Amino acid sequence: MSPALLVLASGNAGKLREFHQLLAPLGFEVHAQADYGVADVEETGLTFVENALLKAREASRLSGLPAMADDSGLEVDALAGAPGIYSARYAGEPKSDTRNNARLLEALAEVPEGRRRARYWCVLVLLRHAEDPVPLIVQRSWEGEILQAPRGEGGFGYDPLFWLPDQQASAAELDAEQKNRLSHRGRALQALVAAMAPEPARS
Amino acid sequence: MSPALLVLASGNAGKLREFHQLLAPLGFEVHAQADYGVADVEETGLTFVENALLKAREASRLSGLPAMADDSGLEVDALAGAPGIYSARYAGEPKSDTRNNARLLEALAEVPEGRRRARYWCVLVLLRHAEDPVPLIVQRSWEGEILQAPRGEGGFGYDPLFWLPDQQASAAELDAEQKNRLSHRGRALQALVAAMAPEPARS
Repeated sequence: MSPALLVLASGNAGKLREFHQLLAPLGFEVHAQADYGVADVEETGLTFVENALLKAREASRLSGLPAMADDSGLEVDALAGAPGIYSARYAGEPKSDTRNNARLLEALAEVPEGRRRARYWCVLVLLRHAEDPVPLIVQRSWEGEILQAPRGEGGFGYDPLFWLPDQQASAAELDAEQKNRLSHRGRALQALVAAMAPEPARS
Repeated sequence: MSPALLVLASGNAGKLREFHQLLAPLGFEVHAQADYGVADVEETGLTFVENALLKAREASRLSGLPAMADDSGLEVDALAGAPGIYSARYAGEPKSDTRNNARLLEALAEVPEGRRRARYWCVLVLLRHAEDPVPLIVQRSWEGEILQAPRGEGGFGYDPLFWLPDQQASAAELDAEQKNRLSHRGRALQALVAAMAPEPARS
């Protein structure tokens, strides 16, 4: 049986590889949106799921294939949920992890340890076609605390500031295997894969 | 402890009663959106979840409270998923179950038994506040087949045409208890309630 084609609505080569590795054993072949001339869309949604749907819909529309997309961000309780859906552009354009992390530290400068609770969110969607009224939707979170200063060299985004009490490490101090097992994105992807085997089922 | 207030983004008294009965034991008091001057919004989304979010967001914005909304519809395989998100207005405005059912029978006139597979979908969302980036989302389906002629007097929507092989009855022939236990909406509501106890948790 030839593999079922899927488009990933992302320009990130690391994500593409990760999705492909997990989905190939299930009979899916994951292609990059750039192969179909899909460019990044404006993320005008007010929730992660709406932004993921905007991206997946554009990729599906232009490719004529089922499309997956993710959207993710950091929710900090002491900041009433900020930076939230604006996590990637928290310190403005062009997007910069360094400036985003600096802005987060500044925003929390007066907030003592014990009140710096936060969580990463990852939302994954799978549209069977561009007009699919019931996309598969998976949301997973990862609980942590925002450090007073960065730790670790791995990961990306807010990982150097994201402290995991259970691991006694920041997300940037985990190796890739640990991070994939524990993280919001890793667990969301596992849940999506589970929901897609043997075929997209969501009752 | 005083109950936590919630707004239901619906004008349907039956739905309000049902949500209230299930959520009161969990410490939630469910109010009608009309109590806060919320009118129906235009459902411009392309998925059930986007339409439910539009409704819940408006209710939360005007009430200042957490808001729940549902959106639902019928997906018929032989009609490439139609009527889908347009189920309530399939035969145009004003909305009419009778005319919608007639249009569905007409659309399937040439489709023989055994190829009339369909499913109801229900999507429920809970926004903690109007800018909540990670609403709680639950989607449940109910599998059936579209009859050649209506059966039964109960239910609403496409229930008289929705045949349940396991029950050897149409959805309109079930009593309320049976329907709540089996239906897309009943099971979605149970799943939402489970996710809300003891508090909105969605990791």
